[in-house]
Amino acid sequence: MEMKELLKIGKEISLLGKFLTLASWDQETETPEGGQEGLGEMMEYLSGLYYAKSTDPVLKEGLEQLSKEELSVKDAAIVRNMKEGLDRMAKIPQDEYLAYQRILTRSQSLWAKAKRENNFDMFKDALKEIVSYEKKFAGYTRTDEACLYDVVLNQYEKGFTTAKLNEFFCLLKNEIVPLLKKIQESGIDYQKPYEGTVDADVQEKYNKKLAEYIGFDLNRGVIKRSEHPFTTGLSADDVRFTNHYYEDKLESAIFSTIHEGGHGMYEQGVSKELEDTAVAGGASMGVHESQSRFYENLIGRSKSFWNPIFSDLNDAYGLKMNLDDFMNYINRAEASLIRTEADELTYSLHIMIRYELEQMLFNDEIEVEDLPCAWNQKVKDFLGIDVPNDAMGVLQDVHWSGGMFGYFPSYAIGSAIASQIMAAMKKELDVEDLLMKGDLKQIKDFLDYHIHQHGSIYTTNELLNKMMNEEFNPQYYVDYLKEKYTKLYHLD
Amino acid sequence: MEMKELLKIGKEISLLGKFLTLASWDQETETPEGGQEGLGEMMEYLSGLYYAKSTDPVLKEGLEQLSKEELSVKDAAIVRNMKEGLDRMAKIPQDEYLAYQRILTRSQSLWAKAKRENNFDMFKDALKEIVSYEKKFAGYTRTDEACLYDVVLNQYEKGFTTAKLNEFFCLLKNEIVPLLKKIQESGIDYQKPYEGTVDADVQEKYNKKLAEYIGFDLNRGVIKRSEHPFTTGLSADDVRFTNHYYEDKLESAIFSTIHEGGHGMYEQGVSKELEDTAVAGGASMGVHESQSRFYENLIGRSKSFWNPIFSDLNDAYGLKMNLDDFMNYINRAEASLIRTEADELTYSLHIMIRYELEQMLFNDEIEVEDLPCAWNQKVKDFLGIDVPNDAMGVLQDVHWSGGMFGYFPSYAIGSAIASQIMAAMKKELDVEDLLMKGDLKQIKDFLDYHIHQHGSIYTTNELLNKMMNEEFNPQYYVDYLKEKYTKLYHLD
Repeated sequence: MEMKELLKIGKEISLLGKFLTLASWDQETETPEGGQEGLGEMMEYLSGLYYAKSTDPVLKEGLEQLSKEELSVKDAAIVRNMKEGLDRMAKIPQDEYLAYQRILTRSQSLWAKAKRENNFDMFKDALKEIVSYEKKFAGYTRTDEACLYDVVLNQYEKGFTTAKLNEFFCLLKNEIVPLLKKIQESGIDYQKPYEGTVDADVQEKYNKKLAEYIGFDLNRGVIKRSEHPFTTGLSADDVRFTNHYYEDKLESAIFSTIHEGGHGMYEQGVSKELEDTAVAGGASMGVHESQSRFYENLIGRSKSFWNPIFSDLNDAYGLKMNLDDFMNYINRAEASLIRTEADELTYSLHIMIRYELEQMLFNDEIEVEDLPCAWNQKVKDFLGIDVPNDAMGVLQDVHWSGGMFGYFPSYAIGSAIASQIMAAMKKELDVEDLLMKGDLKQIKDFLDYHIHQHGSIYTTNELLNKMMNEEFNPQYYVDYLKEKYTKLYHLD
Repeated sequence: MEMKELLKIGKEISLLGKFLTLASWDQETETPEGGQEGLGEMMEYLSGLYYAKSTDPVLKEGLEQLSKEELSVKDAAIVRNMKEGLDRMAKIPQDEYLAYQRILTRSQSLWAKAKRENNFDMFKDALKEIVSYEKKFAGYTRTDEACLYDVVLNQYEKGFTTAKLNEFFCLLKNEIVPLLKKIQESGIDYQKPYEGTVDADVQEKYNKKLAEYIGFDLNRGVIKRSEHPFTTGLSADDVRFTNHYYEDKLESAIFSTIHEGGHGMYEQGVSKELEDTAVAGGASMGVHESQSRFYENLIGRSKSFWNPIFSDLNDAYGLKMNLDDFMNYINRAEASLIRTEADELTYSLHIMIRYELEQMLFNDEIEVEDLPCAWNQKVKDFLGIDVPNDAMGVLQDVHWSGGMFGYFPSYAIGSAIASQIMAAMKKELDVEDLLMKGDLKQIKDFLDYHIHQHGSIYTTNELLNKMMNEEFNPQYYVDYLKEKYTKLYHLD
């Protein structure tokens, strides 16, 4: 097979995939209740076409052959990604794949209902089926040296094994748990710097401007509302994210904007030459999260960022907040129950809970019915608080209902990579000064150059190596957290 | 081929078609400027799959065979519709079909730009190509006795030939043109009953309630904004329409709601047993328009409709309008330039202009470059006014840029059918009384029973015959208009 022919097939697969993306976007943001089932049926049918095209024997043969040829870096990466995708998919029988897609379509609403009604039993059986399929599928593709959980981890973060992640999370646990304890003992409790509510429409207007301020291009993007913020997209020229406006919790939408904006700018920054190829997306979920976390935490929670635009915020919301009070509040650390609302310090502890439970599930060390109890115990151990109910505990996240086991660690990996990138950036740019001047373009340009444009041509470690001659190193992250929180809570 | 197998293929065609519908919906309501080209490419690819599946030789053979068998009314209608679709499509070579789709994707934005910049020349060449393709395709499928324009008419309104429509429009012209002249001479000029503006968000909220009041089900529907109101849908359980809120023209959105709501209730009322078959949609564009026009004009412009809810409208908009002033204003007749804003009386004259021009184009009696001049002359002849520029003249409608020649007559046919339906309904229901009581359910039930549930199992005339033992008869419409406007303008 010629490379040209492969690219044509790749494009067809990409175009089919985009219709599935569009349908998901619609499902989350627009489809009325009555239409959910019908949309599920549409997606199931198209998934079948997608599966057939992605596992076509002619494609398989072409990939085998091309993977032995001398190709450009880009073409070799395309062949590598398509081959990995095909090898994984082709090992799963089509009927099992489609049966699983059907379960997933149904389970999302089961989970939503179980969460709404705070009833784990309503979701338990679906979750059992999902776990069982995930384990079965992982079994199809595992190699001798890998454990089952390694296989699912690898889908989101190539090369990050259980062994590596255990080390990473062990470091975090050893550093963050005692740090949090000290903060809790400090007696300092930073208060909300505003009272009252701000209308969702007013917030929406301001947040769209904020997204543009950090560099998200609305001519090539959409911002809409949904229950939970998320980012998706059809191409670099059509990137979409959502937000949720709580009238009495203004910082929620603000940091969602900066977070999802970070994801969005990654997608918008991928080189157009990669469009409709197997390297068009982000390098990995961890690298994707590094971009959102970089903007949310390292940029968006810094005083230099808010300094030039703080009066705009006060004006837009009709408030008279003090900048220092605002900074203390948005950076405060406290043990809390909900991951998506967790602060920068405790966030990784929430991830760790999920990581450890997923590992236990895949190692047959725990049954699905025992998850709520184990969850609550871990929250107690890591965060020191009690979980009042499953809706605020084991049922809080959507991921498992979508079969996304192995995904959660990416959030913590991303946070760590974000600190590493900041270290590299500061060697080239005076970041504080740029922020104070309201010049965010050079920051985006740095990320476009080192990360965004490459899509998934390089792996996480290859990207980091190219940027700073160093592989993934969580020490930057730990050092950053320790310095920041020691200062904020006067711990030295 | 077994009927069961045919239904399976039909379902696959339907599911592919729904993705195209979803993409169009997104294109009109959500896709950012940068993403339009990419979405066009997605749609082009899926159109290819749709074409291939719809013209599959195995399907063709199966339809030939099944069309000779003894089938239920429903199955026979499915076979008939699929066969008609396949016969038409299969006569067009795939490369020409796809080339035409590409032109259509591009021409919509060309038209929009030409309209925005009031420059017919920018759109002229694309329109020439479209007309030439439409004529070529019509040539492929015409039979000996039909003229080219009959072929395109037949796509939207089966059995309505040029001969029949000439008769219909001749009747309208003879009755309405003199009636309008008398109104213009009466000296009566009903004035707008409110001043100032109402915020779009406030209007949107009220209009959603109004849609529910007439019977549109928001659990199985979506109402969104777009430049021009339109209705579409993925199934009876997912029907979507748009609106446009002008802050100083409150009646615009109100009547769009009632109009699109009429279309929407038709789609929502189709029997679920017909889902994903070739008879799931409306019977014809004319019957579809009969439902929207029925609600918009015969229900929505009646005093009994507004009587029980008029104070709600005043309250919602913070106004103190007088009901009689409102009624006079929303029913006034006056010569105007824009079809979509035309009143009930002059609307058909706008249609007639387009009908006559389309006929001339397909009979080679006029060239595309001469359309603006011919347009302006006809406006002068029928409505007695001058067209100041092409944006308000020949460029005003989207239809031609989408290749929808032969569509316009459906609007007038629909208006006529609406009056015919009202005559039938009044034999069974005390419509005035129901409206005064705010009981719109019985009205919808009547339409569900006689029209909606049947999808496109029956043709327009079959539906009318089943309902009232009479075929299409425009005399009801003419009588209604004469009575209404004679009274409103004291012409007797």
